[in-house]
Amino acid sequence: MRTIGFIGLGVMGKSMARHLLKAGYSLLVYTRTKEKAVDLLQEGAIWKDTVADVAKEADAVITMVGDPHDVEEVYFGASGLIAHAREGTYLIDMTTSKPSLAVQIYEAAKERSLFALDAPVSGGDIGAREGKLTIMVGGDEEAFHACYPLFSCMGTNIVWQGKAGAGQHTKMCNQIAIATNMIGVCEALAYAQRTGLDAKRVLETISTGAAGSWSLTHLAPRMLAGDFSPGFYVKHFIKDMGIALAEAEALQLNLPGLALAKKLYEQLAERGEEKSGTQALYKLYVEW
Amino acid sequence: MRTIGFIGLGVMGKSMARHLLKAGYSLLVYTRTKEKAVDLLQEGAIWKDTVADVAKEADAVITMVGDPHDVEEVYFGASGLIAHAREGTYLIDMTTSKPSLAVQIYEAAKERSLFALDAPVSGGDIGAREGKLTIMVGGDEEAFHACYPLFSCMGTNIVWQGKAGAGQHTKMCNQIAIATNMIGVCEALAYAQRTGLDAKRVLETISTGAAGSWSLTHLAPRMLAGDFSPGFYVKHFIKDMGIALAEAEALQLNLPGLALAKKLYEQLAERGEEKSGTQALYKLYVEW
Repeated sequence: MRTIGFIGLGVMGKSMARHLLKAGYSLLVYTRTKEKAVDLLQEGAIWKDTVADVAKEADAVITMVGDPHDVEEVYFGASGLIAHAREGTYLIDMTTSKPSLAVQIYEAAKERSLFALDAPVSGGDIGAREGKLTIMVGGDEEAFHACYPLFSCMGTNIVWQGKAGAGQHTKMCNQIAIATNMIGVCEALAYAQRTGLDAKRVLETISTGAAGSWSLTHLAPRMLAGDFSPGFYVKHFIKDMGIALAEAEALQLNLPGLALAKKLYEQLAERGEEKSGTQALYKLYVEW
Repeated sequence: MRTIGFIGLGVMGKSMARHLLKAGYSLLVYTRTKEKAVDLLQEGAIWKDTVADVAKEADAVITMVGDPHDVEEVYFGASGLIAHAREGTYLIDMTTSKPSLAVQIYEAAKERSLFALDAPVSGGDIGAREGKLTIMVGGDEEAFHACYPLFSCMGTNIVWQGKAGAGQHTKMCNQIAIATNMIGVCEALAYAQRTGLDAKRVLETISTGAAGSWSLTHLAPRMLAGDFSPGFYVKHFIKDMGIALAEAEALQLNLPGLALAKKLYEQLAERGEEKSGTQALYKLYVEW
């Protein structure tokens, strides 16, 4: 593989695309708002006016777009990847999207002799910038191995999770664990503040034991400092929780913790916090 | 301080008392069921027939009993510590109990020129055995310093959290964070299993990132292995959550995550899982 297409140059996508460029790949890019591509073009990426134009020349195309509707358009639209990619092209969706859509893409791709992988990531903007993402991959294992050199430019924890959709499902597991824990972190802190404790001291005491978590260590101090700037947007988290809940409901799997987290985050969004970081959930508790 | 009284020799208490004995203190012990004391007596502890008999001779008395009712009896009963301790004695309650009761003990102790500390622990039976408990202390800071040598026999993370009750409140923060996170761990695993993922592989992938937590690393593998033996009993966890919820309600602090956790654990207890370990919550999801 020498020529890689990259579709979607948001905060995450741009950092990921840059790593491919730096690794020496020829990079074709398309994104809805062309100005987001300017600095990458100066660094050597080649602009294409449509998804189809990217598809026609690339050995592999990576997509990192907003939500499942965007994914559907990029893959199944009239100018989309399924219709225009050359036989044998690898199509890698790194957007966090619906597992069932990943399966549809896989099947449509297979009919046209294309190889599709779902490969959502975790690690946020910092992980993307530093090339240290966790990448959760679903699809044929051979296709995974073929694309491993691309993944290794962008991540450090790269695991094939199973057949098509398994990458998305794994990402949902990640989001489910985070969502419910975030409630616990907020409630522990709110309790500390309301009972007059020194919340920082409490954090230092409980972070290293059985109550410890990444969120308690990294996000709780931001909550206490009133820093609600986005590492990960509330609105994107709500999207992810919606996908996970819908999948669970389809399986008749009752997830009351996740349902509560989604409800609380929706209340937060209604207060105008859609573009705050997920740690802003704390605002529901301190203002309660 | 040379002579220490120890009341309550359950799994935790006995390990804690043994450390004091090994450190060279003269140890007076009382526990409801005398046979629980037998090995400590062989190791050099001295048996006393009542709480009052312990109180009359000790420079400090440590209590590690079952629940707030037991604490009340040991401190305020006719044969209790408040009535029988000598002036200047340190009374240290290490039971996880009500913050408001800790304040009552502190005030009653002060009137009799006794020094009371609330000092609940985390770290479980292993932490107690290894002398590596986290000890969260509330009460006068001078009394904390005076008792530090005793604490340091039993723990490694020993922090004065503030005035009387602050130790118990800090322990509640710890339990709140654990309770809600446990739901997230169970739901992430249940989702993984129901969607046909390799749950062990998913755990390895997500444990090191933003979804990571002590429970995900240490308890999720036990859930998958079907190991529901107690590190910490379901029934004790329900007791702690009940205390935290009552305190929060008194402050008009709404903690829906904690309320959900308590409800789920009560459902679990109703199924006969009171004496299982807290990771048995997973049974609600796999059998749902």
